[in-house]
Amino acid sequence: MKRMLVFSAHAADFVWRAGGAIASVCAQGGQARVVALSYGERGESGELWKDPKQTIERVKAIRHAEATRAAQALGASFECLDLGDYPLRVNDKAVERLIEIIVETAPDLLLTHAEKDPFNPDHPVTYQAVEKARQLATGAGVASAFRTVRPPELLLFEPHQPELCGFVPTLFLDITPVWEKKQKAMEAFASQGYLRQYYSERAAHRANHARRIAGHKNIERAEAFQRVLPQVVRSL
Amino acid sequence: MKRMLVFSAHAADFVWRAGGAIASVCAQGGQARVVALSYGERGESGELWKDPKQTIERVKAIRHAEATRAAQALGASFECLDLGDYPLRVNDKAVERLIEIIVETAPDLLLTHAEKDPFNPDHPVTYQAVEKARQLATGAGVASAFRTVRPPELLLFEPHQPELCGFVPTLFLDITPVWEKKQKAMEAFASQGYLRQYYSERAAHRANHARRIAGHKNIERAEAFQRVLPQVVRSL
Amino acid sequence: MKRMLVFSAHAADFVWRAGGAIASVCAQGGQARVVALSYGERGESGELWKDPKQTIERVKAIRHAEATRAAQALGASFECLDLGDYPLRVNDKAVERLIEIIVETAPDLLLTHAEKDPFNPDHPVTYQAVEKARQLATGAGVASAFRTVRPPELLLFEPHQPELCGFVPTLFLDITPVWEKKQKAMEAFASQGYLRQYYSERAAHRANHARRIAGHKNIERAEAFQRVLPQVVRSL
Amino acid sequence: MKRMLVFSAHAADFVWRAGGAIASVCAQGGQARVVALSYGERGESGELWKDPKQTIERVKAIRHAEATRAAQALGASFECLDLGDYPLRVNDKAVERLIEIIVETAPDLLLTHAEKDPFNPDHPVTYQAVEKARQLATGAGVASAFRTVRPPELLLFEPHQPELCGFVPTLFLDITPVWEKKQKAMEAFASQGYLRQYYSERAAHRANHARRIAGHKNIERAEAFQRVLPQVVRSL
Amino acid sequence: MKRMLVFSAHAADFVWRAGGAIASVCAQGGQARVVALSYGERGESGELWKDPKQTIERVKAIRHAEATRAAQALGASFECLDLGDYPLRVNDKAVERLIEIIVETAPDLLLTHAEKDPFNPDHPVTYQAVEKARQLATGAGVASAFRTVRPPELLLFEPHQPELCGFVPTLFLDITPVWEKKQKAMEAFASQGYLRQYYSERAAHRANHARRIAGHKNIERAEAFQRVLPQVVRSL
Amino acid sequence: MKRMLVFSAHAADFVWRAGGAIASVCAQGGQARVVALSYGERGESGELWKDPKQTIERVKAIRHAEATRAAQALGASFECLDLGDYPLRVNDKAVERLIEIIVETAPDLLLTHAEKDPFNPDHPVTYQAVEKARQLATGAGVASAFRTVRPPELLLFEPHQPELCGFVPTLFLDITPVWEKKQKAMEAFASQGYLRQYYSERAAHRANHARRIAGHKNIERAEAFQRVLPQVVRSL
Repeated sequence: MKRMLVFSAHAADFVWRAGGAIASVCAQGGQARVVALSYGERGESGELWKDPKQTIERVKAIRHAEATRAAQALGASFECLDLGDYPLRVNDKAVERLIEIIVETAPDLLLTHAEKDPFNPDHPVTYQAVEKARQLATGAGVASAFRTVRPPELLLFEPHQPELCGFVPTLFLDITPVWEKKQKAMEAFASQGYLRQYYSERAAHRANHARRIAGHKNIERAEAFQRVLPQVVRSL
Repeated sequence: MKRMLVFSAHAADFVWRAGGAIASVCAQGGQARVVALSYGERGESGELWKDPKQTIERVKAIRHAEATRAAQALGASFECLDLGDYPLRVNDKAVERLIEIIVETAPDLLLTHAEKDPFNPDHPVTYQAVEKARQLATGAGVASAFRTVRPPELLLFEPHQPELCGFVPTLFLDITPVWEKKQKAMEAFASQGYLRQYYSERAAHRANHARRIAGHKNIERAEAFQRVLPQVVRSL
Repeated sequence: MKRMLVFSAHAADFVWRAGGAIASVCAQGGQARVVALSYGERGESGELWKDPKQTIERVKAIRHAEATRAAQALGASFECLDLGDYPLRVNDKAVERLIEIIVETAPDLLLTHAEKDPFNPDHPVTYQAVEKARQLATGAGVASAFRTVRPPELLLFEPHQPELCGFVPTLFLDITPVWEKKQKAMEAFASQGYLRQYYSERAAHRANHARRIAGHKNIERAEAFQRVLPQVVRSL
Repeated sequence: MKRMLVFSAHAADFVWRAGGAIASVCAQGGQARVVALSYGERGESGELWKDPKQTIERVKAIRHAEATRAAQALGASFECLDLGDYPLRVNDKAVERLIEIIVETAPDLLLTHAEKDPFNPDHPVTYQAVEKARQLATGAGVASAFRTVRPPELLLFEPHQPELCGFVPTLFLDITPVWEKKQKAMEAFASQGYLRQYYSERAAHRANHARRIAGHKNIERAEAFQRVLPQVVRSL
Repeated sequence: MKRMLVFSAHAADFVWRAGGAIASVCAQGGQARVVALSYGERGESGELWKDPKQTIERVKAIRHAEATRAAQALGASFECLDLGDYPLRVNDKAVERLIEIIVETAPDLLLTHAEKDPFNPDHPVTYQAVEKARQLATGAGVASAFRTVRPPELLLFEPHQPELCGFVPTLFLDITPVWEKKQKAMEAFASQGYLRQYYSERAAHRANHARRIAGHKNIERAEAFQRVLPQVVRSL
Repeated sequence: MKRMLVFSAHAADFVWRAGGAIASVCAQGGQARVVALSYGERGESGELWKDPKQTIERVKAIRHAEATRAAQALGASFECLDLGDYPLRVNDKAVERLIEIIVETAPDLLLTHAEKDPFNPDHPVTYQAVEKARQLATGAGVASAFRTVRPPELLLFEPHQPELCGFVPTLFLDITPVWEKKQKAMEAFASQGYLRQYYSERAAHRANHARRIAGHKNIERAEAFQRVLPQVVRSL
């Protein structure tokens, strides 16, 4: 019964990178809240802008509808802070909003982008902001003058070009049981359809890796994540 | 109900570095097998050698008795390959013995030393041998001409000077419920008594870290480990 | 006869992390100036805030008195820039103040926090600000249009969870002769009393490490630091 | 008109990991020589061993025939040193054979496995042996008492799980024009057919990466490599 | 026929660090545009400030004239954004100007400083700004709402103290044919004459390295660069 | 009054890489013992082999005479273990000889090559052997059954291509006062004369770096080293 909070730089990132994890948590009785920092309206909506009469408001509205449908397919809620993209800028006030969201959600699991990406200027900005907000929302492990929540686990998304982003997978999640839900969520993004095949094959490859690492023969689709903080466990 | 296999360079390492983990697995109904590669008879038995009539056989016998008592206190079995220490040398035949042990144990969890240690020549030799044996005992993830077992999780011990060994803890295990057992196991090593206080305080410090990382307030003693391979999980 | 300048993120950090080094320099005829960037009034004064009538001014006043007493016990001066904490923000004007302090102190030794800390948002901010100020106060090694001072040695404090902060000790200082002074300084912080035992044991562990590294048998307490810049010496 | 020398741990590795590069060099008038260190007869021929009457000689013969057919499809020659696999052991005499092969081939390009692989014990052994032979075959950049050749460029193969092997691609080769040849070579390995789909999709993914990195829109299949040594060029 | 764009933190950096590369591209029929972010008027013009009547405007004018002469000697154009130095600050508007310059130049090659420099505060600021501008000027590899250009290759300059800046050379360019042009460009900087000998010897040392790496015996002067992004090639 | 022990892979390495340090220790009343593992008779004596009547014994004799003269110029003793070069092989018996040498010398300072070198196969072999011998000669910090000595400081030489060897200088030694002695020692190596200019300029460049790092204006020649182990000090 985990509570999961997902910070996505643009409206669609959470689907490609964590759709299976979100569906998995929800399918097991947990709750997932997806918060996009921007709609990706400038940098990742090129298909929509091919319409010469397109407006920024309409692009955002379309992206909002798509992301909401995708989140619903996974069992999650969706909201967008609409901070703008390419470049995404997260000022002090926006960081405070992130802190509030973390404190009011009190998540067990926090998911966001990796620290580095030489081909996406907004993903590292998202990481920095979420990382700062996480620390401020949880305090320094001692009593403080402000309200804090129990520190969540922090998982980083697999980026599009993992090695160039310093991404090393430390966690493979079997998403075979919820694969249809992720497929449905990916289909919600008509404007980024070319990524559907890529991430379907990727999920099969990560399943191949997971089978080799752990010997579980029936994993057919998997998602990879990187833990940044140590795990604390009661039993091995 | 996990099966744990522990490769310890010298007769006492498993106690200071993984005594709590061993006791924890056994207390939860699992099984633990401790295999020392040497008795540490030359490099880590200095107290015993202060007796001018001391012999190598007697030192080994004393170390064997101590290690067996310590393992029993934790609920584990103990055996020693008696390969010699300072320097420990692991030839091809000894690696084959390690492979056999892994295959016949078919462990869920495999524990051993870290890859590097500028102040202990035998610990990295143990890592290299165990790592080679692990790979050969599990195959390359495809059907092979020899018998293989399901790949275990691999956890590295916390070294005496962690930062100098490149050790970064990625897993903290709460050993509060089995702390008395670890204490008893440490007491079995009369000849290395000076380490008892050090590792008791260390377990309290690691508990302090674990509480800060995860907010679990009632952890009083913990052990730290480093995962080398990704985890594969069915749910987050 | 060294001049030491210490930049501490919060009012108490300098005591746990460099109290021995400060006392050592002062005991040998040198001078030490401690500059805190904030009082740690929000994030690290939780005990004080348990008083329901507590005010921010009173918390700062208590912290100021404690830090001043601690600095006196070590032989150093204390001042606080009162820039706020959790989050600490260091704007351009504050960096200029740091530059002025470095230029007017002309230190031989500059001490501050490590670059990274996943459980303290203010320590890395302090590092970045001090590092920027250090470079601007010393110039690029060529004549410049502004007043510069000779580049000091830069030593980073041991963080609370060293491995998670990328901290690797490169320097152990024997603080046995000044240990009582550090104890007295730690006692000045009534509001963070739980750290006294932790850092006393830590000093004993670091002494154990130092003895193993260098064979000096009479080191009983030590502090660890990380050099960031090369040493320049006249003799080995 | 480049001369390429490829050292493959097992009989099939060169196809999955460098088939496109080999075909590309040959299609442009160059020459490629593939040298396998073993047939992979124990660790990577599981399908063949399902025949209960199978013998080690027959497995090697089948693998030799397959690898020869694959090499021919790419335009290269194939030979095998038959050093054994799982574990592959490369003794001093075998290193001398590698040196001879490098000196007699005098390659412009040298390709082999990456330095690390937690799921394949033979790949790192191959890297170490080839790296040692490369250095001894080229000398220290000064006149020497033995025959040396001009230092070749050194390219490392993409491993099966790149991130776990520390692999970072620094070179993407467009293999679109020779894709059919690589497909044909992959088909030669009836006994490892399950890898054909995996590496076909991988080549498409790497092409996607290459298009994003360099903007060349018509790359449909690519292979990734990691340079270990600097490039030396006459023009940018 | 390559188009090269060079972002230099101060007016003279491009000469010491990339003068040969610029001259080489221009000598082969290409074009080079040098954009300095500042004149280095405060931090790197100390000789000029020895004149007690010196003014900031005159320093800038002298540096502008020197840099223009140097650029001409290499075959390049020179312009300066005059953003100030020690510290250089690059705000959002300045980043937008960098984006415009990249988009209007549509370079094949982009050169700038390395990410880190413990003895120069302005070089890393330049790296960050150029890196951000590069990403925004080229988009995320998908269609976007704004004008983008094909991603250029990115080469980092050799810093003054390479190892302290994390610089690892991955590319050596033979500048023997254009060495006289680089010498002439270096002579244009009367105010930093002491660097001429240093960088002349450095070019000879890098040539020595290049000869050892690749066996090209007639390289007499070379410049070293570090690639940050993978190369994409049609043939090896 | 320090005792220094230098392990040099080939007969001449100690001169280029540590000649100043050796002379400095001796000039200050200390003692230095240079032990070469081989004469470099095959890989680094190319000039001598141009004589068609050359023999291996004569090459070794010439190198012995040169190295002895060089060592004398610095104030040190010279001996050679004559283990062969290209490749240098250090078996168990040779490691035991290294241990004996360390134990009988009981050095304060131990100098040898860096861990990695992609263009010299013998330097890393030397590092591994010396590192193993150092650990066995000093024990694990506890009483042991064999004779041990106090752990020396360990300094690594600057390699010919520092960045490619992972070398980061952490220590610059001012060798200005003993520069003439190093020059004389370099002149002893008639057969590697081309390195004299290179390392003279390098010493001037390292002095330039040292001046910038520490502001000591009168350093004219310096040598760089990398510490591998922490320093333990009584005062800062």
